[in-house]
Amino acid sequence: MKVIYHVDAVEMWPMTLGNVRNMLDWLHQNEQEYQIEVLANGPAVKAYLSDGLTDAMQVVMAQEKAEGVLFAACNNALKAQHITPEMLIEKTVIVPAGVIELVQKQQEGFAYIKP
Amino acid sequence: MKVIYHVDAVEMWPMTLGNVRNMLDWLHQNEQEYQIEVLANGPAVKAYLSDGLTDAMQVVMAQEKAEGVLFAACNNALKAQHITPEMLIEKTVIVPAGVIELVQKQQEGFAYIKP
Amino acid sequence: MKVIYHVDAVEMWPMTLGNVRNMLDWLHQNEQEYQIEVLANGPAVKAYLSDGLTDAMQVVMAQEKAEGVLFAACNNALKAQHITPEMLIEKTVIVPAGVIELVQKQQEGFAYIKP
Repeated sequence: MKVIYHVDAVEMWPMTLGNVRNMLDWLHQNEQEYQIEVLANGPAVKAYLSDGLTDAMQVVMAQEKAEGVLFAACNNALKAQHITPEMLIEKTVIVPAGVIELVQKQQEGFAYIKP
Repeated sequence: MKVIYHVDAVEMWPMTLGNVRNMLDWLHQNEQEYQIEVLANGPAVKAYLSDGLTDAMQVVMAQEKAEGVLFAACNNALKAQHITPEMLIEKTVIVPAGVIELVQKQQEGFAYIKP
Repeated sequence: MKVIYHVDAVEMWPMTLGNVRNMLDWLHQNEQEYQIEVLANGPAVKAYLSDGLTDAMQVVMAQEKAEGVLFAACNNALKAQHITPEMLIEKTVIVPAGVIELVQKQQEGFAYIKP
């Protein structure tokens, strides 16, 4: 199962992380392999700052990361928000253009979900 | 034509039901076969309660159901909203995990629309 | 690269036009061919009126149009908003039903992005 989640609004992070949690639980129960990526662009990249999410949400994201979920940030969005790479939390992947990533993944067979 | 609509916010139901209405009208005019599913997760599952939509919207949904549209609810969302199966309006389909349903349908060739 | 953007809320136009701008910049840099369509339905079709966007956003849209991006309006939405074809800015494409367009393009291999 290959999926890319798209989040561009800060307020959609709790829903997105909850969606991913439910997905992982089902995948573990059904012993299925997966590639899950969460692609943030627009203001949503602010969640990758050390204080970008509530403590509770940070714990959820860290756990999902530990289970192999990729969290990616659009470089155009980072620049627009004046965020430099060293300001990002550990293991955040930077992609040159978020919308290109969304298209390339769909071309590779990833399903698209916009919470 | 195979389509899955994704609705996770209560306020997006009128737009979603309107989208489906327009789609059905075009499909009938063009005599095309279809499989249409509306998948609700998050707070949007509340629309499946008997008082979850305005009377006018309930009529629209009932008509679409009569034309073969499937209305599905994410079981994780139902639990989170403390909604039990017997509280749901007739013919609501319950799926174990809404996001898994969204991926599986896309894998089966369904187009994805997020109103 | 083939992509269809879906916009149904007026307030999502700046994000959508910014997404398309970033996409075009990447495509030019990487010398890739593209087909990009922006499909508006719901209230979002109002952006195709001569005063439907800020001057700055109109300049961005005009430039993207000059680079080959197709801007399409759902005819059902135009009727619902009491907008006649002659009220639309130049080169706006009218499609009979926006949601049908979204499905047909996905069937033709277009990736779907909902900003």
